[in-house]
Amino acid sequence: LFQSQSKVAKLLQLKAQLGGDEGKHVFVLKTAKGTRDYNPKQMAIREKVFSIIISCFKRHGAETIDTPVFELKETLTGKYGEDSKLIYDLKDQGGELLSLRYDLTVPFARYLALNKITNIKRYHIAKVYRRDNPAMTRGRYREFYQCDFDIAGQYDAMIPDAECLKIVYEILNELDLGDFRIKVNDRRILDGMFAVCGVPDEKFRTICSTVDKLDKMAWEDVKKEMVNEKGLSEDVADRIGEYVSMQGGQDLAERLLQDPKLSQNKQAFAGLTDMKLLFSYLELFQVTDKVVFDLSLARGLDYYTGVIYEAILSQTIPASVSTPAEQNGADEAGVSVGSVAGGGRYDGLVGMFDPKGRKVPCVGVSIGIERIFSIMEQKAETSSEKVRTTETQVLVASAQKNLLEERLKLTSQLWNAGIKAEVLYKKNPKLLSQLQHCEETGIPLVAILGEQELKDGVVKLRNVASREEVDVPRADLVDEIKKRTL
Amino acid sequence: LFQSQSKVAKLLQLKAQLGGDEGKHVFVLKTAKGTRDYNPKQMAIREKVFSIIISCFKRHGAETIDTPVFELKETLTGKYGEDSKLIYDLKDQGGELLSLRYDLTVPFARYLALNKITNIKRYHIAKVYRRDNPAMTRGRYREFYQCDFDIAGQYDAMIPDAECLKIVYEILNELDLGDFRIKVNDRRILDGMFAVCGVPDEKFRTICSTVDKLDKMAWEDVKKEMVNEKGLSEDVADRIGEYVSMQGGQDLAERLLQDPKLSQNKQAFAGLTDMKLLFSYLELFQVTDKVVFDLSLARGLDYYTGVIYEAILSQTIPASVSTPAEQNGADEAGVSVGSVAGGGRYDGLVGMFDPKGRKVPCVGVSIGIERIFSIMEQKAETSSEKVRTTETQVLVASAQKNLLEERLKLTSQLWNAGIKAEVLYKKNPKLLSQLQHCEETGIPLVAILGEQELKDGVVKLRNVASREEVDVPRADLVDEIKKRTL
Repeated sequence: LFQSQSKVAKLLQLKAQLGGDEGKHVFVLKTAKGTRDYNPKQMAIREKVFSIIISCFKRHGAETIDTPVFELKETLTGKYGEDSKLIYDLKDQGGELLSLRYDLTVPFARYLALNKITNIKRYHIAKVYRRDNPAMTRGRYREFYQCDFDIAGQYDAMIPDAECLKIVYEILNELDLGDFRIKVNDRRILDGMFAVCGVPDEKFRTICSTVDKLDKMAWEDVKKEMVNEKGLSEDVADRIGEYVSMQGGQDLAERLLQDPKLSQNKQAFAGLTDMKLLFSYLELFQVTDKVVFDLSLARGLDYYTGVIYEAILSQTIPASVSTPAEQNGADEAGVSVGSVAGGGRYDGLVGMFDPKGRKVPCVGVSIGIERIFSIMEQKAETSSEKVRTTETQVLVASAQKNLLEERLKLTSQLWNAGIKAEVLYKKNPKLLSQLQHCEETGIPLVAILGEQELKDGVVKLRNVASREEVDVPRADLVDEIKKRTL
Repeated sequence: LFQSQSKVAKLLQLKAQLGGDEGKHVFVLKTAKGTRDYNPKQMAIREKVFSIIISCFKRHGAETIDTPVFELKETLTGKYGEDSKLIYDLKDQGGELLSLRYDLTVPFARYLALNKITNIKRYHIAKVYRRDNPAMTRGRYREFYQCDFDIAGQYDAMIPDAECLKIVYEILNELDLGDFRIKVNDRRILDGMFAVCGVPDEKFRTICSTVDKLDKMAWEDVKKEMVNEKGLSEDVADRIGEYVSMQGGQDLAERLLQDPKLSQNKQAFAGLTDMKLLFSYLELFQVTDKVVFDLSLARGLDYYTGVIYEAILSQTIPASVSTPAEQNGADEAGVSVGSVAGGGRYDGLVGMFDPKGRKVPCVGVSIGIERIFSIMEQKAETSSEKVRTTETQVLVASAQKNLLEERLKLTSQLWNAGIKAEVLYKKNPKLLSQLQHCEETGIPLVAILGEQELKDGVVKLRNVASREEVDVPRADLVDEIKKRTL
């Protein structure tokens, strides 16, 4: 230990000599920028959220997999467009060049290609890494959880796609985060629309990412970007403007199928036909009350090839916890929480990894768990109900001195019987501090031992909340604790 | 997508131009060296193991925390002695210098100091990273899980230490991995022993790491290293040899307290007195049948200051799955699985992070979960029982054509009622392929819909294993499925 401490000291000296403009180095006690620890209370909330989400995935028959936190650098190369600059690389310490995973979708596609898997329904909950500008109060971190559900395989149109939307609906309902909407669109409809409006082929992707800003910017500003920065004519932009203001359901898909120009476009026709079919399945799944066909939904990622969707909470978070930079377009009451789930169909990604380019069609959804954590944590803070961080049923205590051995013996017997039990690590703790420990941590029962109880072969079982006490024979103690902590 | 594919192509070209001696680059489809994916079967085993371990931690009243996968580089500096070369650094992409965590103990100490926590009982299950030589068949990876339980706080001697040993005992029992032993020693006893034998102070640590090899090397070879490499005299080495051959329980601690030389050494006396106390608590916890006081146990890490321990399985793994390099000292039947848990007391580590050097005494244990996974996976492979990777209770099926909508509607109703249900994503799947899906994935029930059943308001519920079928009224279906899949 002393050796290690002196190493630290030497290092600090060295840094002070080499380092910075100020010529001195201060050891900073913190976590890396954009990351955070989870304390026990936050973990309790996180586990509750995970449990709801995993139950839903399992209800839909999903398996789970896991992949390493880093991949070969080249596995991630060319998958994220401009966002590639946000990838964390590992230092070249000899051997392979590695990067931290940026999402769970690319590792999933790599997994399918590597193992020649052509169909699977799986979920994957794990941390991903982005060297992004953190906005921690809104739940935007450099290390954050993704929570993905995907269906891979060659199936009949729109059935797995509809199940993904059903899953988003179920999860947002069960998490009880207030009202929400799920916007749906299709990359083929967008591309067809761009073609029909007169956007040159090579500008489809860049115009798509401008359209994607419509959830944060007014149409006027989006149009300006299209005309001034992306070089569209006003006419073309206005034609796009008409389409992207359209919202509806199955009816809108039917109406656009009658649109003479749009229905002549092969891509748009295929997309609209599938959209109509999708809504008929969503009707059977009873989720159409929250799903909107919205032509302004674009989504950034390059790899989508068909249906895309995004879920938005109606609720806002208090303005006090959001930074000014985050409040663009927010009203006085607060800033919209924004997207809490998103996904779509990506039929080409697996083929990029397969040596022979064999395609595996995929559709999936990613739950934006960090924003959900933020909301749940804020809820917990304002709620009067205390979040318990342990599940302890009983504390083994004593009011008298020199009973440590008896306390340890009884505690051990309770553990062996499967009871969650604690005992204070003191030879002679005061009864008051033992009771306080229960109140602070929410332990509902105390099993109190004294000379008299030992003589009588009983334990005094005390209810912490009501302060009631009863003598329970040692032989009945386990059953009695189980009965009282159901 | 095409854009991305062409980017990959361009990159491959570029690499081919720049790259290597052969002047060509092959895209390698693999995971990073020393890492692995977990497939659904491996995940099912992993979850079972975690569930047993977490239940035990919760039974002992532990909370859980989580920390980021990377820390500031300087947080890890000077904590691991020579092993520091195995730390993964992140590339300097501007901003802070970061490293992947090497274990969970140093981040825990950093967490306590950062948050000024002076007592906590917590577990932490997460992946850690070491640029070590992988031996994957034995469960040694570059990315691997650690599973730590620690008690921090100023308490009366040996009570938390005894609970850690109780926990190891409970977990290894419940995992059902065969017979095991837990070796216990104390850094203070080792140091006292070295002093009494005549080892110079500055050689304590290096001699300690030579002693640590006794579980893999014969005493003769260990002695040679002490004399030839570390420069001890034969006499001194022989005196150490006498001590490190000693094994026992409370009796051995008492006997060594009578040893005139050893008991005169302050460190050794304190360690032996605590060892005696520890065994008296282990007696109350009824775990002394597996715990051995073993003077040859040393453990590598610098930061231990008191009690240390290590659990070893008696079982061996088949020689066929171990590489020749791993078979040093193994008998023909196989190679010893070795240590599956270890830990000890480290009272100085938190103080290294505290600006004022305030100490928080800690004791903990780490479960070697990867070795346990390896054993469980091998067990599952040789077992006849099939590992299920989903929990689906029922498949909604049809023998007739054009009933997709009815299948989807019923499936949705079952999901809404909390039943785990699947439906094939085909318009008109064959009954045979629907039944095969059940047999392959272990789904126990099929709910079959046909024109007649729809007319009668019933569903034919089929038991996949027994092939029995009964007509169940739609209103009773949920209860019937629940009853049959308890």
